[in-house]
Amino acid sequence: MKLKKIEHIGIAVNDLESASALYEKLLGTACYKVESVEGEGVRTAFFEVGGSKIELLEAMAADSPIARFIEKRGEGIHHIAFEVDDLEAEAERLRSEGFRVLNESPRPGADNKRVLFLHPKSSHGVLIELCQEKADSSQ
Amino acid sequence: MKLKKIEHIGIAVNDLESASALYEKLLGTACYKVESVEGEGVRTAFFEVGGSKIELLEAMAADSPIARFIEKRGEGIHHIAFEVDDLEAEAERLRSEGFRVLNESPRPGADNKRVLFLHPKSSHGVLIELCQEKADSSQ
Repeated sequence: MKLKKIEHIGIAVNDLESASALYEKLLGTACYKVESVEGEGVRTAFFEVGGSKIELLEAMAADSPIARFIEKRGEGIHHIAFEVDDLEAEAERLRSEGFRVLNESPRPGADNKRVLFLHPKSSHGVLIELCQEKADSSQ
Repeated sequence: MKLKKIEHIGIAVNDLESASALYEKLLGTACYKVESVEGEGVRTAFFEVGGSKIELLEAMAADSPIARFIEKRGEGIHHIAFEVDDLEAEAERLRSEGFRVLNESPRPGADNKRVLFLHPKSSHGVLIELCQEKADSSQ
């Protein structure tokens, strides 16, 4: 079992519209989806680049995780997300290896995914997301 | 013209050996290369994951960019590197779009690459590397 690929890189930004315009220029490709994830208090914009994605993240409320991240560190890279085939099995493997899995069970993520996070303290300061495509997008 | 793919994500760490051992467990794959880049004052370790790479970065001196990054922000994600076909042409395109390219001309990077960096202030706090495979690895 292993992590399959870098599914996306999440970048915390103050303003989704201006950041999207800039990343369109940078990457040379248009944003393909804007989506809110209510449970995380975040609005997202996605860009495809060579089979991986850039996900821009804008806070929807002053007390949301992205707002707190920006308050503390400024705009910048927030997390790396790796695609896995079996989220529960991978979480169990990583727990047994000593990694700190932040969520008891998977949560709904953006772009038709179920997600789990690992605590940055168990991975040298990097917030890591594991994500798995939902089998049925109506879930 | 556009950025082709996420070539790698660079992660600043205090100790390359212990971080490598941990990322081997996390990713489920072995480090395939350890390489020093004297010009950048850095020792690197590479992991392949689904066509992209994770690059761990350890400072070789207290005044190197990675040492200063860790002193200021702690261990964590340092940069995103995108692969391009023509480094000079892409730098010119991005300069004309208003991005701040940090290097006048490409520098030697790890893993047989020529590289350029964009200033984080022109990309919402993200240090971006553009990299191109050297045509001749003896260059």
